[in-house]
Amino acid sequence: MKRKALCGEAELTRITGQEESEMAKFMDVHSGFVGVSESQLRDAHEQDLAIEAAEGVHFERAWLDPDSGKVFCLSSGPSKEAVQRVHRKAGHPTDEIYELPIEVV
Amino acid sequence: MKRKALCGEAELTRITGQEESEMAKFMDVHSGFVGVSESQLRDAHEQDLAIEAAEGVHFERAWLDPDSGKVFCLSSGPSKEAVQRVHRKAGHPTDEIYELPIEVV
Repeated sequence: MKRKALCGEAELTRITGQEESEMAKFMDVHSGFVGVSESQLRDAHEQDLAIEAAEGVHFERAWLDPDSGKVFCLSSGPSKEAVQRVHRKAGHPTDEIYELPIEVV
Repeated sequence: MKRKALCGEAELTRITGQEESEMAKFMDVHSGFVGVSESQLRDAHEQDLAIEAAEGVHFERAWLDPDSGKVFCLSSGPSKEAVQRVHRKAGHPTDEIYELPIEVV
């Protein structure tokens, strides 16, 4: 009886598409953005946002240090490869992508 | 006259301690945390939280990739050096700290 109830829940989750909790978080790092402006970073971020849905990815936030040229992007999605594909298609690929199963506040 | 007014504003800010908007954001990166658990990361984060006030720093969030051993900490504070001092005193120093004047959502 208990097992049946659990199966029902799993099925309900599948049917309603409530898979939010199955999404992993990722941080990716880009180098070489020395002197880039806020509007240039916004344009790059919007290129990701425009195509991310096809991969089930969402780029939540991006931070830039224009002195060192480092950019950090925080995203959620099904896999590291999916995050990488969005960045590659948007024209700013990186191989430095970390999955973040652990987060503390 | 104009100059006097500006001095007055600066003084008011100093007196009331309303320096929130003058805080910068930082991302720092640690390596070598392969296989670290959530509770170990939480302990390390709490060591920062316990002593950060003395430097006017706040560690907002930390993420860990236990496979690569990378940790990313997002903080706010008056300077990169202040962030570095807190981490050093808490026992997990890093030289890789980036100031993030630009953020997009």
